[in-house]
Amino acid sequence: MTPHLSHDRYQRGAARLADVDGPAGLAVVEGLAKSFPDFARYIVEFPFGDIYAREGLGLRERELATVAALCALGNAPPQLRVHVHAALHVGCTPVEVVEVVMQMAVYAGFPAALNGLAVVREVFAEAGIPLPLA
Amino acid sequence: MTPHLSHDRYQRGAARLADVDGPAGLAVVEGLAKSFPDFARYIVEFPFGDIYAREGLGLRERELATVAALCALGNAPPQLRVHVHAALHVGCTPVEVVEVVMQMAVYAGFPAALNGLAVVREVFAEAGIPLPLA
Amino acid sequence: MTPHLSHDRYQRGAARLADVDGPAGLAVVEGLAKSFPDFARYIVEFPFGDIYAREGLGLRERELATVAALCALGNAPPQLRVHVHAALHVGCTPVEVVEVVMQMAVYAGFPAALNGLAVVREVFAEAGIPLPLA
Amino acid sequence: MTPHLSHDRYQRGAARLADVDGPAGLAVVEGLAKSFPDFARYIVEFPFGDIYAREGLGLRERELATVAALCALGNAPPQLRVHVHAALHVGCTPVEVVEVVMQMAVYAGFPAALNGLAVVREVFAEAGIPLPLA
Amino acid sequence: MTPHLSHDRYQRGAARLADVDGPAGLAVVEGLAKSFPDFARYIVEFPFGDIYAREGLGLRERELATVAALCALGNAPPQLRVHVHAALHVGCTPVEVVEVVMQMAVYAGFPAALNGLAVVREVFAEAGIPLPLA
Amino acid sequence: MTPHLSHDRYQRGAARLADVDGPAGLAVVEGLAKSFPDFARYIVEFPFGDIYAREGLGLRERELATVAALCALGNAPPQLRVHVHAALHVGCTPVEVVEVVMQMAVYAGFPAALNGLAVVREVFAEAGIPLPLA
Repeated sequence: MTPHLSHDRYQRGAARLADVDGPAGLAVVEGLAKSFPDFARYIVEFPFGDIYAREGLGLRERELATVAALCALGNAPPQLRVHVHAALHVGCTPVEVVEVVMQMAVYAGFPAALNGLAVVREVFAEAGIPLPLA
Repeated sequence: MTPHLSHDRYQRGAARLADVDGPAGLAVVEGLAKSFPDFARYIVEFPFGDIYAREGLGLRERELATVAALCALGNAPPQLRVHVHAALHVGCTPVEVVEVVMQMAVYAGFPAALNGLAVVREVFAEAGIPLPLA
Repeated sequence: MTPHLSHDRYQRGAARLADVDGPAGLAVVEGLAKSFPDFARYIVEFPFGDIYAREGLGLRERELATVAALCALGNAPPQLRVHVHAALHVGCTPVEVVEVVMQMAVYAGFPAALNGLAVVREVFAEAGIPLPLA
Repeated sequence: MTPHLSHDRYQRGAARLADVDGPAGLAVVEGLAKSFPDFARYIVEFPFGDIYAREGLGLRERELATVAALCALGNAPPQLRVHVHAALHVGCTPVEVVEVVMQMAVYAGFPAALNGLAVVREVFAEAGIPLPLA
Repeated sequence: MTPHLSHDRYQRGAARLADVDGPAGLAVVEGLAKSFPDFARYIVEFPFGDIYAREGLGLRERELATVAALCALGNAPPQLRVHVHAALHVGCTPVEVVEVVMQMAVYAGFPAALNGLAVVREVFAEAGIPLPLA
Repeated sequence: MTPHLSHDRYQRGAARLADVDGPAGLAVVEGLAKSFPDFARYIVEFPFGDIYAREGLGLRERELATVAALCALGNAPPQLRVHVHAALHVGCTPVEVVEVVMQMAVYAGFPAALNGLAVVREVFAEAGIPLPLA
């Protein structure tokens, strides 16, 4: 474990956040920073500078895992919306996203999947992805 | 939607369950069937005959999503154990499994990730996978 | 386990859904089918064609159990609304519905019960059921 | 709202607890009282003296609702065990209990139902109820 | 355990509720009582007349604990709003409230903390507390 | 935001962890590090080096908030055990710990509080704290 400047960690996190979600992700963090600057910094540093910056798992798989978890938990629709968007941004196909959300009916029940699909529908509409998928 | 024999659906589910988890998965279902035969049949038919049998998402991605969801929910350790095993069985690397579980610290908190890692450690020990990973 | 046509299963589920929630339930499924036709079919087939179609438990008891579970989980208000409506539709009295929701204060805390009562109030208002109950 | 002696409320709760779960319920409360006497008193007074003592919903329905909620939440197996026992004690049939637990697969996912069935199997074994049910 | 008039218990709870949340808390209960009078009474009696009326833990600590729990559960935003307000009312500093909510990122994940901070921002805006805190 | 060496952050976290939980906390992290060294490092760095190291909220209040959250979530008994121990270590009285756990009956239901009290009883027994408290 080589010591490194935490400034590097923030920079690495900001770059990774841009990889994951494009300008939308950075905008969310900048909005948050106006009210809670320390927490905005932590979000860049730990989830993105530490976790998403790790090797060993692709960004596509990371986003599908996050969509699965947030859909299953069912109590964080705004973050699910961000990560459905991010999943598309890192190259997941619309079909893959829908499959993961439908699969959550098995593990967290049909209401969790239904409410996840409602979020998917909103994000797909903004992204111009027609439903039903072919 | 072409009508088809439900017997086919059960057969398809049993085959898919074997793909996902090998003999271990079928053994779980057979054990359950001794006490709750209808529910054992539903597990084969809906999760495996309907959901896992779908195209559009690879089995590796399906298992990583399931590991993520069960780790995040945190109230189903026996099923998390089954799916950590299944993730390895369908070709996820040990590193990928550990990465998904660690990532859950971001979305469901450190306790959820810690308890998920405890399950990973047990399954890896049975599978002869040494920790820490190289 | 006699093989049967899955088409029969869908038909059985659609009939059972109509028993449970009347035209409102079918309308929800038809709306969903415009975006996610496969998932709409699964909802008819598994929850209604398999589970609710079973003997051994009355529809009144099934709906009270569902209201209890959704109120306790607290993360699926749209589905709680559907099932408060359905509970009345299958013959639960308004008093029974309110009693189940209040009881959830014991098992899931007062906020879960309070948010459940807010849903009850909306559904009762649409149904013309005055509060407080006599 | 007529003022009444809180002693009456405790007595009413203890009587209701005995109705609901027989000597087993009272033994749980007495065991708890050795370490946490105030909390043991609250359990008698609020859940049983206030809620279960209410009219408008039968004890059978109350217990099925509680089994549903605890199975769906999935994080309170000891209390689920108590209420599976209580459900049988107030006259729910073994079939009704199993039906409610299986139904939770729809609302809280298959793992919640599976872990609920594991509790059911234990309680039924102690009660001499053979599985599978006829 | 000396018997006492339950009327006293209600009065004690109403006084404690006023201590905790000022006129806002009483207004919530009075609004609820129009639709669900028994449940409104229970809220005064058990949470406030029994629990919050106990000695051994200060009101500041009680409110910080409640904000922590509601933020972590994540499925009761209206009640979290009430208790962020109450925390300020009993003398918690704005910094203390924000610290507790940020800390929930560790135990319940970043989405729970983010959604908690969104509630904090609303309550602080109504209370004229500028963000970011100095 | 002044850049600083992350090594400092780890050192600060390790010191804070020792403040919070004494040798027991460091032992948990060292045990974890044998299997998952990166995750052990993150636990020191983010929860303790970032969050618990912040000013503005006392360690006593931090631990009471954590006990509240883990008791309410109900799916992380090992971590609840650690933090009941830590609460005592930072100077919370046994009464304060019991009060917080009992209060969770209001926000997360009686089963959550009961299972929390079972953890409290174990930790108090190890610490030689007799129950019931005087």
